[in-house]
Amino acid sequence: MDEGQKRSGRAARQAERSGKGARVGRPYIVRNIPTYDVLSEENLIRIEAAADRILAETGMEFRDDPVVLEHWRRAGAQVSGTLVRFEPGMLREVLADAPAEFVQHARNPARSVLIGGKSVVFAPAYGSPFVMDLDRGRRFGTLEDFRNFVMLAQGSPNFHHSGGTICEPTDVPVNKRHLDMVLAHLELSDRPFMGSVTAEERAEDSIDMARIVFGRDFVDANCVILGNVNVNSPLVWDGTMTRSLRAYARANQAAVVVPFILGGAMGPVTSAGAIAQSLAETMAGCALTQLERKGAPVIFGNFLSSMSLRSGSPTFGTPEPAIGSMVIGQLARRLNLPLRCSGNFTTSKLPDAQAMMEGTMSMLAAIHCGANFILHSAGFLDGLLSMSYEKFMLDADLCGSLHSYLDGIKIDDDQLAVSAFAEVGPGNHFFGCSHTMQHYETAFWDSELSDNEPFEKWEAAGSADAATRANRLWKKRLAEFEPPPMEAGMREALHGYVAEKKAAAGDMWY
Amino acid sequence: MDEGQKRSGRAARQAERSGKGARVGRPYIVRNIPTYDVLSEENLIRIEAAADRILAETGMEFRDDPVVLEHWRRAGAQVSGTLVRFEPGMLREVLADAPAEFVQHARNPARSVLIGGKSVVFAPAYGSPFVMDLDRGRRFGTLEDFRNFVMLAQGSPNFHHSGGTICEPTDVPVNKRHLDMVLAHLELSDRPFMGSVTAEERAEDSIDMARIVFGRDFVDANCVILGNVNVNSPLVWDGTMTRSLRAYARANQAAVVVPFILGGAMGPVTSAGAIAQSLAETMAGCALTQLERKGAPVIFGNFLSSMSLRSGSPTFGTPEPAIGSMVIGQLARRLNLPLRCSGNFTTSKLPDAQAMMEGTMSMLAAIHCGANFILHSAGFLDGLLSMSYEKFMLDADLCGSLHSYLDGIKIDDDQLAVSAFAEVGPGNHFFGCSHTMQHYETAFWDSELSDNEPFEKWEAAGSADAATRANRLWKKRLAEFEPPPMEAGMREALHGYVAEKKAAAGDMWY
Repeated sequence: MDEGQKRSGRAARQAERSGKGARVGRPYIVRNIPTYDVLSEENLIRIEAAADRILAETGMEFRDDPVVLEHWRRAGAQVSGTLVRFEPGMLREVLADAPAEFVQHARNPARSVLIGGKSVVFAPAYGSPFVMDLDRGRRFGTLEDFRNFVMLAQGSPNFHHSGGTICEPTDVPVNKRHLDMVLAHLELSDRPFMGSVTAEERAEDSIDMARIVFGRDFVDANCVILGNVNVNSPLVWDGTMTRSLRAYARANQAAVVVPFILGGAMGPVTSAGAIAQSLAETMAGCALTQLERKGAPVIFGNFLSSMSLRSGSPTFGTPEPAIGSMVIGQLARRLNLPLRCSGNFTTSKLPDAQAMMEGTMSMLAAIHCGANFILHSAGFLDGLLSMSYEKFMLDADLCGSLHSYLDGIKIDDDQLAVSAFAEVGPGNHFFGCSHTMQHYETAFWDSELSDNEPFEKWEAAGSADAATRANRLWKKRLAEFEPPPMEAGMREALHGYVAEKKAAAGDMWY
Repeated sequence: MDEGQKRSGRAARQAERSGKGARVGRPYIVRNIPTYDVLSEENLIRIEAAADRILAETGMEFRDDPVVLEHWRRAGAQVSGTLVRFEPGMLREVLADAPAEFVQHARNPARSVLIGGKSVVFAPAYGSPFVMDLDRGRRFGTLEDFRNFVMLAQGSPNFHHSGGTICEPTDVPVNKRHLDMVLAHLELSDRPFMGSVTAEERAEDSIDMARIVFGRDFVDANCVILGNVNVNSPLVWDGTMTRSLRAYARANQAAVVVPFILGGAMGPVTSAGAIAQSLAETMAGCALTQLERKGAPVIFGNFLSSMSLRSGSPTFGTPEPAIGSMVIGQLARRLNLPLRCSGNFTTSKLPDAQAMMEGTMSMLAAIHCGANFILHSAGFLDGLLSMSYEKFMLDADLCGSLHSYLDGIKIDDDQLAVSAFAEVGPGNHFFGCSHTMQHYETAFWDSELSDNEPFEKWEAAGSADAATRANRLWKKRLAEFEPPPMEAGMREALHGYVAEKKAAAGDMWY
């Protein structure tokens, strides 16, 4: 082997390594395994027919937003008061204008993500009022916590997106939180991010701040910010949400349209019925973006869950929503829309065995169903109510392993180890053979948190459990954090915008 | 609704409930979701060609068992010394005689299991020298521990099989352990079970004890016991294993043929190569059962794992073996053989977050790959070295949830909740609607161990983690245990057999 060959071999290994769980991130994952399709086409068509029937017979309410009613009227729906009914096929026709995939640009172009097709994008969890860690227990989230989570996400190669309201910064007035949150995403991360949806003007502020960074014309032509809008399930859209949804669409930015269905409460207790409802609600929301601005990017979302027979409490990470997500994935692909599905959920109050059993089951469902954007990839405990520092690190590790999972298996003579069998032969080990030496650095995902040591070595090192190791790791990561570079003028403009907006309004606390 | 309708509705609900995660077990699961096929047929054929090449060019060693060499010679393989080489296609031809599915009979006929096709059978983990619990930590397993685990499995509706060497009863001489273990499986459980493979005469003792229970003629015509035989990977079969494999096949009982490949050690470090090797090794072992007795039941097994780049330690529950298992499943189906795949693995030394992250990923791979018999469904910690009482209970709970997972989604007008949408309408909740009342008892799997309560309620109840709850549950289950009935004469005959065998030999301790 000459030196040239050696060098190219090393470069190839390094390139491969960057794609194989090593500590160099990819901007997003391109899946190399198929989606897991659990339902026949015949049954998918029956669900679609049930959704059409809900839309045509039961209809959907659109409250406190006359523009929406006007949109529907013009598009041919039957509007009576706030109740809207849709002829079968009508929404599908409107949805044909939405792009099947789009790029969400990051301020660091190397970190822009493709959303749609075979892409998979991991973002931290979203929306908890509480935070938790092993030292201080549960408490209300603060802006400091929020900034910490942005830094922990940015500091990990296992995410692709900075997310949105990672936790509620409850020490900031509700009408000013979005300013600090968007500022943190832009300053402390160079990945794509999400803006506010809690009021139309907050959505517009979020988009305005993106305009400072990307430029007004660029933003008008490209997606640079997402807004996550929820249906008030069952079958109600609130004006706050539709106004925010329209603000994003109007600016050519992507709304993520997400029903929130706890089976037996906000929807039927049977999975098939909850899925039909979810499809109806999402189709209506996605179609609305197209009526506001034809061709605007939009993401088909879903959120299914279950409840405990014993307590009536919502349950997460259970089998029924996992299977349901895979069906939703099939339905979204039939609409040719990018998909947000499921995420890492649990009702556990600690980063314990329950947390990762439920979390892994729900996260793998998001992977299998073909989700392009996984919003709640990391951090949730306590039934979505708390962001846990330790769980965040454990989930980040799971996200790392899912890079290798989605890479699937390559089949060629080298991967089939044809030469190794000839070299090693029966009864000998493969430790030192040249095929192993050539591949061992890239062959397997290497966890940062799992302890694979022999029992005695683990015991001698203090018998720490995974949560304790995660506790050490998040502190280390925060201590090491270095913010990505930002031009001083841009930073000044952003801070100026925030200061001006804050000065112009009083504080609202609820 | 008249009384007759009411009764039949109630009976139907109860029947459904028994199949939906409630506390009444099913003898085995019939999967209602497809397998997850991750590789194209073209790539499967390349793996098969690589396996054929290994068999033809590198060959396989069969040590210390001249009968095996004679079998191969007669079947047309090239035998030189202990090395055997196989023409492409030869093993497939032999394997055509093996059944695609078979029933393993339990002494309680209602608990007999189908192995093959769409069936899924959960058995406890197998082979740990150590046991662990939260009170006493890690220690060598004893017969008391072994019996405890048999009782815990029998006491749970979430298993279908009593397993084999659930832990090593290290306080019993090695040459007598099998007698106590088989006795415990037969007395304390009424489910199917596994016998010894550590020596030919121990395999025969195990089968003899089954003959006492089932009758000699029945055993000759039906499968009532399994034996798990391991390849000494790479590409070596030891005489101890082939003699035991032949003992089971000769008695028309099923050998489970399992390579043991830690990638980079007992096989190539690349997944494709390890899978090709696994296929070659399993095909040879399965074919051998057919040469010993044409038509004997046999199970195609596999065990893939990975290693840590940092420590060189084996790793479990990692993404590469998970994907690899799904490929092995596809290959087994192309051979039309029942499949044993993967299981619930972890290197964690505690029943913590790591344990259930790795355990859930590996267990779901076994579910997705189409495994018919999942040997290591519950209990492993510490890289297969320890059976944990708490992990056993946590895994049993996961097995329960997988019943609902494998049930998939039913699609009919009732499941689609057509009537419920008409009844509830937009903006109202589904809590009390008649559709919910009719279905809520059976709609969702209900965990025994997950805590779904609100934080405050959980905190007021003592803030227990999942491992602590599992600790309480296994003690409760053991205290409540009632052995299944057994006729006195049968019990006497079994005890007599064991006493006689024990008296006839000295004690071997290694």
